[in-house]
Amino acid sequence: MKNTFGTSVAVTLFGESHGAAVGAVLDGMAPGVAVDEDFIARQLTLRRPYGAISTGRVEADRFQIVSGVFSGCTTGTPLTVLIPNEDTRSRDYAATRALARPGHADYTAHVKYRGFEDYRGGGHFSGRVTAALVAVGAVAIAALRGRGIAVGTHIARCAGEFDRAFAENPADELAALSAKRFAVLDEAAGERMRRAIAAAAEAGDSVGGVLETAVTGLPAGVGEPWFDTLEGLLAHGLFSIPGVKGVDFGGAFDHTALRGSEYNDAFYMDGGAVRTRTNRNGGINGGISNGMPLLLRCAVKPTPSIFLQQQTVDFLRGEDAALQLNGRHDPAILHRARVVVDSVCALTLCDALAQRFGTDWLGGAPCAAD
Amino acid sequence: MKNTFGTSVAVTLFGESHGAAVGAVLDGMAPGVAVDEDFIARQLTLRRPYGAISTGRVEADRFQIVSGVFSGCTTGTPLTVLIPNEDTRSRDYAATRALARPGHADYTAHVKYRGFEDYRGGGHFSGRVTAALVAVGAVAIAALRGRGIAVGTHIARCAGEFDRAFAENPADELAALSAKRFAVLDEAAGERMRRAIAAAAEAGDSVGGVLETAVTGLPAGVGEPWFDTLEGLLAHGLFSIPGVKGVDFGGAFDHTALRGSEYNDAFYMDGGAVRTRTNRNGGINGGISNGMPLLLRCAVKPTPSIFLQQQTVDFLRGEDAALQLNGRHDPAILHRARVVVDSVCALTLCDALAQRFGTDWLGGAPCAAD
Amino acid sequence: MKNTFGTSVAVTLFGESHGAAVGAVLDGMAPGVAVDEDFIARQLTLRRPYGAISTGRVEADRFQIVSGVFSGCTTGTPLTVLIPNEDTRSRDYAATRALARPGHADYTAHVKYRGFEDYRGGGHFSGRVTAALVAVGAVAIAALRGRGIAVGTHIARCAGEFDRAFAENPADELAALSAKRFAVLDEAAGERMRRAIAAAAEAGDSVGGVLETAVTGLPAGVGEPWFDTLEGLLAHGLFSIPGVKGVDFGGAFDHTALRGSEYNDAFYMDGGAVRTRTNRNGGINGGISNGMPLLLRCAVKPTPSIFLQQQTVDFLRGEDAALQLNGRHDPAILHRARVVVDSVCALTLCDALAQRFGTDWLGGAPCAAD
Amino acid sequence: MKNTFGTSVAVTLFGESHGAAVGAVLDGMAPGVAVDEDFIARQLTLRRPYGAISTGRVEADRFQIVSGVFSGCTTGTPLTVLIPNEDTRSRDYAATRALARPGHADYTAHVKYRGFEDYRGGGHFSGRVTAALVAVGAVAIAALRGRGIAVGTHIARCAGEFDRAFAENPADELAALSAKRFAVLDEAAGERMRRAIAAAAEAGDSVGGVLETAVTGLPAGVGEPWFDTLEGLLAHGLFSIPGVKGVDFGGAFDHTALRGSEYNDAFYMDGGAVRTRTNRNGGINGGISNGMPLLLRCAVKPTPSIFLQQQTVDFLRGEDAALQLNGRHDPAILHRARVVVDSVCALTLCDALAQRFGTDWLGGAPCAAD
Repeated sequence: MKNTFGTSVAVTLFGESHGAAVGAVLDGMAPGVAVDEDFIARQLTLRRPYGAISTGRVEADRFQIVSGVFSGCTTGTPLTVLIPNEDTRSRDYAATRALARPGHADYTAHVKYRGFEDYRGGGHFSGRVTAALVAVGAVAIAALRGRGIAVGTHIARCAGEFDRAFAENPADELAALSAKRFAVLDEAAGERMRRAIAAAAEAGDSVGGVLETAVTGLPAGVGEPWFDTLEGLLAHGLFSIPGVKGVDFGGAFDHTALRGSEYNDAFYMDGGAVRTRTNRNGGINGGISNGMPLLLRCAVKPTPSIFLQQQTVDFLRGEDAALQLNGRHDPAILHRARVVVDSVCALTLCDALAQRFGTDWLGGAPCAAD
Repeated sequence: MKNTFGTSVAVTLFGESHGAAVGAVLDGMAPGVAVDEDFIARQLTLRRPYGAISTGRVEADRFQIVSGVFSGCTTGTPLTVLIPNEDTRSRDYAATRALARPGHADYTAHVKYRGFEDYRGGGHFSGRVTAALVAVGAVAIAALRGRGIAVGTHIARCAGEFDRAFAENPADELAALSAKRFAVLDEAAGERMRRAIAAAAEAGDSVGGVLETAVTGLPAGVGEPWFDTLEGLLAHGLFSIPGVKGVDFGGAFDHTALRGSEYNDAFYMDGGAVRTRTNRNGGINGGISNGMPLLLRCAVKPTPSIFLQQQTVDFLRGEDAALQLNGRHDPAILHRARVVVDSVCALTLCDALAQRFGTDWLGGAPCAAD
Repeated sequence: MKNTFGTSVAVTLFGESHGAAVGAVLDGMAPGVAVDEDFIARQLTLRRPYGAISTGRVEADRFQIVSGVFSGCTTGTPLTVLIPNEDTRSRDYAATRALARPGHADYTAHVKYRGFEDYRGGGHFSGRVTAALVAVGAVAIAALRGRGIAVGTHIARCAGEFDRAFAENPADELAALSAKRFAVLDEAAGERMRRAIAAAAEAGDSVGGVLETAVTGLPAGVGEPWFDTLEGLLAHGLFSIPGVKGVDFGGAFDHTALRGSEYNDAFYMDGGAVRTRTNRNGGINGGISNGMPLLLRCAVKPTPSIFLQQQTVDFLRGEDAALQLNGRHDPAILHRARVVVDSVCALTLCDALAQRFGTDWLGGAPCAAD
Repeated sequence: MKNTFGTSVAVTLFGESHGAAVGAVLDGMAPGVAVDEDFIARQLTLRRPYGAISTGRVEADRFQIVSGVFSGCTTGTPLTVLIPNEDTRSRDYAATRALARPGHADYTAHVKYRGFEDYRGGGHFSGRVTAALVAVGAVAIAALRGRGIAVGTHIARCAGEFDRAFAENPADELAALSAKRFAVLDEAAGERMRRAIAAAAEAGDSVGGVLETAVTGLPAGVGEPWFDTLEGLLAHGLFSIPGVKGVDFGGAFDHTALRGSEYNDAFYMDGGAVRTRTNRNGGINGGISNGMPLLLRCAVKPTPSIFLQQQTVDFLRGEDAALQLNGRHDPAILHRARVVVDSVCALTLCDALAQRFGTDWLGGAPCAAD
């Protein structure tokens, strides 16, 4: 399905970095979800470059809702967001188009699209396309909120610096994170991270890290035993985010030396509710939500655009070449990517919930339609 | 799509641990792939319990190809494999059905299927269903082989013990692995792992670890930029394997502290071919294969079935309870799971290749049909 | 998706006429639907050859439910039905494999599957595969019945003879049809049809006709405005039935000379319910059910297997040839196909309903599971 | 999948009659197909109201290609077309929103979307959305042309008047049709049809009819035996076109009284090619193309918007009501719908061909990209 993702609630992405616009179509969202343009704008702000640690490209991200909203609510028919490209500095991309930037998709795009790819600024591979994901993700986040489900992400690791872990019940932390531009639980750790990013930037280099996401309020019984496991669905979407090269649940890659007696999450009754004492399984057993907070992490590689000279090839000439990037590039994208992660998680969970409970369930919150 | 996975080449899984059979339908495979029943049987052997470190349950895994093979080759129509359940010890599962085994899907299955689930031996959630995946995966592996593409997996970590990493060109190592029942590159490491497994078993406990997979010979240009990235497709499938709770590419979770200059894979010309000096991106740029070996890892949690007493709930009575498992359980499944990982990778790649190059491409190798 | 159809409730078909078995996997059906093996057997009987007007091949259609049923109810996991092939007379199909039977798929199968197709008795193209559709369709019909939804089909035309049309409210007629082997509303018309079939058979020839289907009790609001219209979904499935070459709704092909004032169905209130005076739109407006009976027709071509000599080609030698069929062939399949039509309609509607109302909706009727 | 259709080549539709725009995303089209904006504009002209027999609404259909085209060719990434709504007369739709227009989707939309639907001018159900289908369909038609495949449709019946049938080899006729605004093979028949339309218009009424489509140059071996039959795929898409209530192949609904000996298409060798003497099967055997022209028909109901007073309900008040439409409405849409039919056929066939032969096949014609 290429650029469409989802079964009952589906997103289709389009656009190139230096074309007319990027955009997304959100199809299958329940009718009656209130669409708050201010909230969408705020989410887009969280994705935008920020201060000294980001690219200088200024993107206003003026978005237009082209379809699917009427009287302030989703109609249930396709909701299309268009984000025109404004600050696209025209320079001669043709001259360097065949110099494959290491860590980027220039070469693979060329092989796949046989030379017809729009190579300007990464074209359709550009991180800019994630702005559209964030815009429709904001609608999904609002729909989940109407059902008491919250999603939030913090920078768990950056350039070797660690944030503290989520609390056992992260609901309050998620609320706090939603307002932060540099999303950490421990501000001191955040300060160390920003310094490390600045140091890398000064060296013409870049950093990566780990994002950790929590989802609270998700009902038990969502997901499938084979293939459409919650883990599989979420990972499928998350690996679309540029730079994400690993996804785990409950911090699995850190716990591979534990024994079963340490890893198993003991169940207990908490009032009438079934809960677990620990949450190493990240809220998912057998591919299906168990009612505990969903916990996942994304390993984000260092931004591939760096200002140090790199060895590469000219793939049209078939010869080795040196590459020196100029322009505007992020020394880190973790702090910008986290709202993309939230968006992908929200969209994926809306889909799983709509499959489970039908297309009206997420529209349960009454909207002020006349 | 629940129990069906894939677009052009798709697998459908069915069956329960204590039902009549488990099985799989492989649809969309190219016509003309030779089907070698001995190879299928050998792959099934690799998944079966092995020696002192596995469950005592003896499964002959006699399989029957019910459709889709004619004169020794795939016909191109659905290939169905049936594996009857033979050694299903009848005991009274009803008495303990509501005692949710920690780390298992008993509770989530109950919520999802509203009490109608087949709870005997894990039902449809049983790892036994992976036998069917391995059987049809063997056909996919053979199809890839016909195109010079090899898949192999070793136990990179087990119970805190480490195997060595794949060589830069792992082709020979993959060939060697295919014959090993306990798939390690370094036999001494394997011996330490087996001792660690045995120690855990003696303590009534279990262990987990990390599986690392390499794919060689994959052409560049396969995969999609958004959503159907190679990473996303592979992870989607891999998270179906019971116990897999994390997937990364190029060892991403181990490299999050690197800088871009260390992480980027420099391109160079090698004869007429574009290659990279390192392979931290695991053979994938922008979701699309770049012609280098594909490298991925699965974090596998410790087997949840242990013989130590555990705290849990009786979810029908809604009260806390203690759980003491008996019977046959694996102290580790890494060595059995690796052939499942190979199978899922092979099936997923066949799908991506058939989408890219059409439905005949994988049947290129002439079959001895009359 | 080839041999899998459906989104939330999906069917996968497999098997060949002269292989080990034909079968189907029904995935996504709600848990808790009572599975009555006698009803499945009865439905299979309706598909079987019948009296003088059918092929002499006797198929016992002994089916086995391999997975997905526990304690007499659907579990919600894949329900697999296997129907072993028993009466497969062995003769030398290889000698005549390249003589393309007119109206059959021999030649197109050969082009598509490049010579690897199982050519014996039509292979995977055989109408025998519909036995598996009928078996899982019976489960879908039972699920719908639990929600007060009934499906039924009569032979509206056969060999130029006409049955009368459905009554405005066809509920009673549907009940009566379900017990008939030769499904007509007017027995005198049925007698004329059977005589016409017998006359064609005597001439070594075959006949076709039109099947008309009604669905009562379907709630309004099911289906989608674009692409997944109820008409589109149903037609997609129905064209799989061998011989179906046309599908219309509300008898559209007979009404193309009407004016809008004659065709439009006037709405009126009937108690609290919205209904229409006529039903030329077949219960569907804008792709979505309107609460009136759903009405559709399938044009079924004459059975292509006839005993008159035919001109054809030997596609391996690339030369013209004459073809004289022997063996067992139906002079008409309308009376056998109608239960296949019912099955496809039921499966398709279960899918649309599960997408609309969630995966539990069809399991609403309590099952006698403990 | 709701508003997305296709597997390898897929279309996503969005927009409402009185919203900002309608549009479509075409994903998966081969890179390197030349995109001729003049041709797109010409196709849109064919869909626009025409002379005395159409609605007075003037739609300039100024379209904008927002993504997916670079240097005049498709890039292989999503191609998005946006058609802003210009001539949307603002009137008070709210007052009459609950008066269900017979034959329209007002009532079913209300039930499905629970009152949140955009009810102005039919909203997302408006035929105006087909303008977007035609725009991306033009790209598909161009892609097919690059492979020697032509698609064309004529008005076979209108208001009881008949056009003559396609010639055995309709290639020349297709070329002639592409330039006609009122697409008939026999101009005298066309004149009778236009008179009949005018007569109905004068009476405040409307007419319907039958469109017949031919596709030449389609290679044999495309389509699937079950579910994704060519017939099923095409019908699935075609039933999305507002007013289409029936689809058949080879004129099946007219031939149900024939015997098999009359209906079967005899094969013969024509040079090296396998052909059939007649083409009652419409170029498809067993769901798969046989190399003959594909022939299909769409039954189109009379336009439901008429100026005669009609009986209906006010579905918010739950009471009977009378309805008198004003404004601009087509007395016939056959002549406008035919280019929509061509577009849906082209898009569906591109998908089937890309699945069969891979994603590059349709881009075979070299594009003038630098």
